[in-house]
Amino acid sequence: MNIKWAYLAGFLDGDGSIYVRIKPNKTYKFNFQISPSIVFFQSKKVIEKIEKLQKQYQIGYLRIRKDNIIEWIIGDELNIRLLLKNIMPFVRLKKAQDKLMLEILNDKKKIKDKDDFIKVAKKIEQFKDLNYSKKRKIRIY
Amino acid sequence: MNIKWAYLAGFLDGDGSIYVRIKPNKTYKFNFQISPSIVFFQSKKVIEKIEKLQKQYQIGYLRIRKDNIIEWIIGDELNIRLLLKNIMPFVRLKKAQDKLMLEILNDKKKIKDKDDFIKVAKKIEQFKDLNYSKKRKIRIY
Repeated sequence: MNIKWAYLAGFLDGDGSIYVRIKPNKTYKFNFQISPSIVFFQSKKVIEKIEKLQKQYQIGYLRIRKDNIIEWIIGDELNIRLLLKNIMPFVRLKKAQDKLMLEILNDKKKIKDKDDFIKVAKKIEQFKDLNYSKKRKIRIY
Repeated sequence: MNIKWAYLAGFLDGDGSIYVRIKPNKTYKFNFQISPSIVFFQSKKVIEKIEKLQKQYQIGYLRIRKDNIIEWIIGDELNIRLLLKNIMPFVRLKKAQDKLMLEILNDKKKIKDKDDFIKVAKKIEQFKDLNYSKKRKIRIY
């Protein structure tokens, strides 16, 4: 079991993205929806292998983008918690993002007024500093 | 121990690159040097964490590129073998590349004439089909 989550910790450190979006949505209390995600990105070339991973871990769903990137998206809070709690002991690069996400999920449930909402929104802002883009060249031989 | 290698298998599947370069080099028998590499790419932002990984696994070295990407490079054959053999049971996406690399390392030692060399070069060509570029956008929030 630990092996399974250690693998996913490595996969997330290497390739995964942890973030929260705030989307305008009038059906929500403060006109904004707080939408957390963990996403893995891979080329469509390995779609069968990603499908197998998704079935084995039984979390999230796959989306094929127009640019032939597959996204393995974990968007529901229960599974985000499950994933983060299980990988946490093994994560090396993205521990701060994992902790921040769990904090936000906890705070989110307790939002009672606009001030609470703004506090959570400010925490979400912290992802900006933690996440980084990696423009890389992959050499092919 | 397995946990350690399962993590690295995930990290390699997510972010690593496995390839072999053939470089012109007149000091080598057939005027070409066969140069295998396993490389992990990360932003310079996480350099301390990558240094820790490199020290813990005791393989390879770090290189900081001008574009602020750190490369953790494993270039010596002994350590490439060590790494591949240990992660092999846990690798999900790049098993074919791992096997091809081990095959090439074995064949390389047995090169006796130009024909042998060309056979190895043809195997190296197979990386072209196995590897793929992943142009991705990382959303930052």
